[in-house]
Amino acid sequence: MKRFGQIIGVDPENFEKYKAYHASVWPEILEMVSACNISNYSIFHKNSQLFAYFEYVGNDFVADMAKMAADPKTQEWWNIMMPMQRPVENRAEGEWWANMDEVFHLD
Amino acid sequence: MKRFGQIIGVDPENFEKYKAYHASVWPEILEMVSACNISNYSIFHKNSQLFAYFEYVGNDFVADMAKMAADPKTQEWWNIMMPMQRPVENRAEGEWWANMDEVFHLD
Repeated sequence: MKRFGQIIGVDPENFEKYKAYHASVWPEILEMVSACNISNYSIFHKNSQLFAYFEYVGNDFVADMAKMAADPKTQEWWNIMMPMQRPVENRAEGEWWANMDEVFHLD
Repeated sequence: MKRFGQIIGVDPENFEKYKAYHASVWPEILEMVSACNISNYSIFHKNSQLFAYFEYVGNDFVADMAKMAADPKTQEWWNIMMPMQRPVENRAEGEWWANMDEVFHLD
């Protein structure tokens, strides 16, 4: 299992809309996330920043992310979410949500 | 179980020191964290921000936090960490790390 911490900004004017979408996520999105071996996935908000924590329980992260990205319903979801998000400028190439570095962990 | 997401800044000039301390945390600190019913605790870093994720598995969070705060070794640790941290200005009263709001969760 590999833990991920990721950060992205959110447009303050659209945050309530973003929150409402996430309060009633389409079931196909949840099913695809689980099918891509992502578990214990949380998103937190403060000060127009979103922080995501999840655990990857598969054995080919790149392939699973490609599978997710190829899913039409996920694309439809992302097309609504992405304009409300404000990615950090120094994210790595190919990232949207920026991966953070793990500094500490205790089980 | 209750999930927490928390944010705090870190002084960029002291981040390497902060990271080094967390790479070899004193065992008493880890024991006290566990004794206070905190589980699956991670800290991530990017852009001089720290994000903490943990799961509280006890049934009296206030009492457990008071227990932690009363521990001399934990106080000693905090006395080293706190000057390196930069709490967000709009944290709630009594907070150091600011609690974020959970927007989404999928098990």
